[in-house]
Amino acid sequence: MPHHITAMLNAHPGGTGSEDKEKLAACIAACFECAQICTACADSCLAEETVADLARCISTDLDCADVCAATGAVLTRQTGDSSSIVRSLLEACRTACAACAAECEKHAQMHEHCRICAEVCRRCEDLCTALLESLS
Amino acid sequence: MPHHITAMLNAHPGGTGSEDKEKLAACIAACFECAQICTACADSCLAEETVADLARCISTDLDCADVCAATGAVLTRQTGDSSSIVRSLLEACRTACAACAAECEKHAQMHEHCRICAEVCRRCEDLCTALLESLS
Amino acid sequence: MPHHITAMLNAHPGGTGSEDKEKLAACIAACFECAQICTACADSCLAEETVADLARCISTDLDCADVCAATGAVLTRQTGDSSSIVRSLLEACRTACAACAAECEKHAQMHEHCRICAEVCRRCEDLCTALLESLS
Amino acid sequence: MPHHITAMLNAHPGGTGSEDKEKLAACIAACFECAQICTACADSCLAEETVADLARCISTDLDCADVCAATGAVLTRQTGDSSSIVRSLLEACRTACAACAAECEKHAQMHEHCRICAEVCRRCEDLCTALLESLS
Repeated sequence: MPHHITAMLNAHPGGTGSEDKEKLAACIAACFECAQICTACADSCLAEETVADLARCISTDLDCADVCAATGAVLTRQTGDSSSIVRSLLEACRTACAACAAECEKHAQMHEHCRICAEVCRRCEDLCTALLESLS
Repeated sequence: MPHHITAMLNAHPGGTGSEDKEKLAACIAACFECAQICTACADSCLAEETVADLARCISTDLDCADVCAATGAVLTRQTGDSSSIVRSLLEACRTACAACAAECEKHAQMHEHCRICAEVCRRCEDLCTALLESLS
Repeated sequence: MPHHITAMLNAHPGGTGSEDKEKLAACIAACFECAQICTACADSCLAEETVADLARCISTDLDCADVCAATGAVLTRQTGDSSSIVRSLLEACRTACAACAAECEKHAQMHEHCRICAEVCRRCEDLCTALLESLS
Repeated sequence: MPHHITAMLNAHPGGTGSEDKEKLAACIAACFECAQICTACADSCLAEETVADLARCISTDLDCADVCAATGAVLTRQTGDSSSIVRSLLEACRTACAACAAECEKHAQMHEHCRICAEVCRRCEDLCTALLESLS
């Protein structure tokens, strides 16, 4: 997926700075991946016998999936100047990823889906942070 | 729509504070409405002869629609404790609404769809701000 | 919400047939409402003590919310000719609404949120069907 | 991305048939990728000087992005029995991908972003078709 994301950024008529482009492509890929994995983790939690203990985890997974999907789409757009939106949404996205990772880490030893989800969320959180820092 | 939103908040087994509930329902309704109106404004701009002058407006409309849709869904969820996500996402949502309103206001005299969209965005911005203040 | 949806359809530079416009506005409003209500029902089910018995209901709620949100956005766009997409997506949307209504109806006597959700899904299903018939 | 998708399907407590699992993972990955690429193509078209000639392409890109995102999320869920929803949504998704590919192919020689987008849409269309056939 990052391969095509970079190819699309290169094909954009507006252009972007080349150093940023790598961080940007990595962050976009992480957001879309995290949206998918959080959706999957919520659904796996739902199928566990202990689902009642996982209600908070499911809810945080769904929140994180929604925020990551929106962030991935907004970061994809290069036309116009959306820097204030991008910045505040990256803050929200790393907050959501950190909250979801913290919740999934509690169940990571019990449930492989929570272990993978926590890992993917931490990675997305890091890439949002790195992109935010490169913007300021 | 707010009628059903309130009925669903009342039917939630977890419950929420009653004063917050009105502000919450109003903000959720505004987010879903703003997502729809921004999608419509982007599409109307796209059909204008002067579309080349409206590229930034279309892009901001699409960003705002994505952020509002995510915010509406996250606010709808009452299970678990997502207060940090809610707060940072409300900040991002009012930023997106303010940016979209400012852009649409530039074309409000020329295009009725931008006038309506600016109005709906300002309202959503205000309701996000009001909800944020009631949370702190 | 339907008031603003109709105003935006009227403000669209491309125009649409007036009889269709009412059915279209009603269906768009129903799709956005159904997306919100299904998200709320999934979250309320998740907070019930009997959540383990409601796993299928939650999953269908989430599917229905996703399909309705996509359908509401696609129906909102009037530019270009998306009639084949619109038709097949309306079919998917009424299928999802019918499945979600059938599932929620099983719990409607026990849970007010399922009762409301079933009602909103049936209404959305009917409006999708009516719009589909007006298109052929 | 397909690596993590497969790992999550394997970690799901409900389980799925192993042959289907590969087709399913490939289709989910294609849906999320197609949602991202179509969003990028719409944004690149918007930044072209000839944007007025690309209005239909932008609109179809946005429709396809919405349908692919919903389809990717619904396919990700394995809990409950959503076979009727899955089937009708896969039909809508391959219709949207085919329409978007056909539109982008018209501009593929002029715009690299349309060439890539057409290719990704055709791939997603094929994987939806393959998954549909494996379901019947």
